[in-house]
Amino acid sequence: MASLKFELHKEDNQSKARAGKITTDHGEILTPIFMPVGTVGSVKAVNQQQLKNDIKAQIILGNTYHLYLRPGTDVLEAAGGLHKFNGWDRPILTDSGGYQVFSLAGTRKIKEEGVTFQSHIDGSRHLFSPEKVMDIERSIGADIIMAFDECTPFGSDYNYTRKSMEMTHRWLDRCIKRLDETDNMYGYTQNLFPIVQGSVFPDLRKASCEYIASKNAVGNAIGGLSVGEPEDKLYEFTGLCCEYLPQDKPRYLMGVGTPWNILEGIALGVDMFDCVMPTRNGRNGMLFTTEGVINIKNKKWEKDFTPIDSGFECETSNYYTKAYLRHLVHSQEILALELASIHNLAFYLWLVGQAREHIIAGDFTSWKNEMVVKLKTRL
Amino acid sequence: MASLKFELHKEDNQSKARAGKITTDHGEILTPIFMPVGTVGSVKAVNQQQLKNDIKAQIILGNTYHLYLRPGTDVLEAAGGLHKFNGWDRPILTDSGGYQVFSLAGTRKIKEEGVTFQSHIDGSRHLFSPEKVMDIERSIGADIIMAFDECTPFGSDYNYTRKSMEMTHRWLDRCIKRLDETDNMYGYTQNLFPIVQGSVFPDLRKASCEYIASKNAVGNAIGGLSVGEPEDKLYEFTGLCCEYLPQDKPRYLMGVGTPWNILEGIALGVDMFDCVMPTRNGRNGMLFTTEGVINIKNKKWEKDFTPIDSGFECETSNYYTKAYLRHLVHSQEILALELASIHNLAFYLWLVGQAREHIIAGDFTSWKNEMVVKLKTRL
Repeated sequence: MASLKFELHKEDNQSKARAGKITTDHGEILTPIFMPVGTVGSVKAVNQQQLKNDIKAQIILGNTYHLYLRPGTDVLEAAGGLHKFNGWDRPILTDSGGYQVFSLAGTRKIKEEGVTFQSHIDGSRHLFSPEKVMDIERSIGADIIMAFDECTPFGSDYNYTRKSMEMTHRWLDRCIKRLDETDNMYGYTQNLFPIVQGSVFPDLRKASCEYIASKNAVGNAIGGLSVGEPEDKLYEFTGLCCEYLPQDKPRYLMGVGTPWNILEGIALGVDMFDCVMPTRNGRNGMLFTTEGVINIKNKKWEKDFTPIDSGFECETSNYYTKAYLRHLVHSQEILALELASIHNLAFYLWLVGQAREHIIAGDFTSWKNEMVVKLKTRL
Repeated sequence: MASLKFELHKEDNQSKARAGKITTDHGEILTPIFMPVGTVGSVKAVNQQQLKNDIKAQIILGNTYHLYLRPGTDVLEAAGGLHKFNGWDRPILTDSGGYQVFSLAGTRKIKEEGVTFQSHIDGSRHLFSPEKVMDIERSIGADIIMAFDECTPFGSDYNYTRKSMEMTHRWLDRCIKRLDETDNMYGYTQNLFPIVQGSVFPDLRKASCEYIASKNAVGNAIGGLSVGEPEDKLYEFTGLCCEYLPQDKPRYLMGVGTPWNILEGIALGVDMFDCVMPTRNGRNGMLFTTEGVINIKNKKWEKDFTPIDSGFECETSNYYTKAYLRHLVHSQEILALELASIHNLAFYLWLVGQAREHIIAGDFTSWKNEMVVKLKTRL
């Protein structure tokens, strides 16, 4: 049982893109990688066999906030951790709950000690402190666990952002201390990733990166982006963070994004991504395909008996037709949610796999530039 | 391309149960059989691969009323029929829409010509006559198509029931005539099953069976049961109909039922069953298992990390635990609907397969009597 390792296989000449491999106690992850979001221990509308066989997911996310509220740490501990509970035996990453506490929970109060908030399920009051969150992430038992941070809202002023960032740094130290004082619960190693904040202020981002880098963690994350800022800011600050974060550690850009966001992120030096977009938008009938974006509800697809997408290998995307999926969406069939989610996730995993192949082949940048145009096309 | 064939493999000594084989242009069906309901061309929350591999369905149903409204016959014809449209290449049976017109549609008027009704989707007015329904069932292209009938409500008086039954008989003649005048649309044979009515009046049921039998169809159905009558009436009239319907043709008991209803129906001489119960009740957290009935929402299962059901072979039932499924149900995850539906359907298919094996082995009745007690147990 060993700490997470990261191996660089190839770096692109014309961009900051890199291909690598992360090794955890639950197996390997080839990077760049996209991580499907399994909020309560289930990637919405998708089962674990489909995640492996159709989507080819290598790692999934769990949300600490949700798992803490339901099923709760006592159930997760009784099961022997989330891997045993949901039957996913490949790597898992858990966020710290910080983002959900700010975006989902009822009246919350942020103090130096931590955040008090109300459950969105039953209104009950809870405290998330760095120590408490580390304990919860221990109980969940993910391979990669995120530090507790405040995700500064876009539009926060300089002063608020600086103070928030400094508290996030102090919280990080408390997370590290707590982990040092506690043991892995299930016999395998859990690895802490700290999170860079600083919103859209270059000097704060730089300071945050330097602070985070000084902790010498096995991997690092960029938080506080994809929270409403314009796309050029997303790219500008992703690039800035990648410049200051260690070269030899995986970089995780949290909550990003569209297929083209992901390709641009890879070009800027990001190795890991997660986002609810493929599942959430899929459930609303928006499909990302090798030819561009499809609104499957449109009349245009009513008699289109071609596969959802034949541009890559996926049983769901290759087997079911656009006309059938459109019909299922219009009939509000549950199967529509399943097929659209599987397709979109399989497409995301295919896309990052292609990026990796092109990095290794040495033609990533030209491929990426062509692909971004194609991906944005509205069909 | 040939008409449906039925071959009897074994008849039970102590009951009327029989094991047989139905052959259609889309393949064989071993009887007794349960047919999952695929209302709009999708068995709710289940995909076609799961239907084949996990559930081992041999034939599924489509609902004429729903398919006529959505996606409509023009789309189905453009696709080349329902098999091509939904990607299910094994046998399909369509009902006649009669039941839905009476149970789902808005203000309806029954006349000799047919039934006018309002769509439950948009309130638009439509007429279903025997001729119209045969044309629609031609467009859908199922292997087995049901005659248009009035499903007499339970509690109807003798006079209404007799008149309704006589109209159903006249409608049957019009269905047969229409089919004689029209061709199979997609190169394979469609087979008409007439439907016995007569509610809970023995002389009417007998008269209806004799009329239906005189048509010498390749298979026959028992309608108008499982519509609210007490269980003893269900069995009494199922037995009565089986007595008067041809021995050498498959008998289909429409809309039945619980696992024990199905075993008793088999004992009475029924070969085919369909019901929304496994999927509908599954979506509400009710599981039928080899050990009895489970309400998976109960606290009892919170830390039960044993498989949903290890009593028979099914990847879903064997892989996922009761605790995980309970958590998904409580969290209102879409995956809960999928796993519960797959389990219940796989269980139903396993159950009729076991019945078949025991009929062939010659110990059906003693097995059935023990099994019925087990199946009814509340766990």
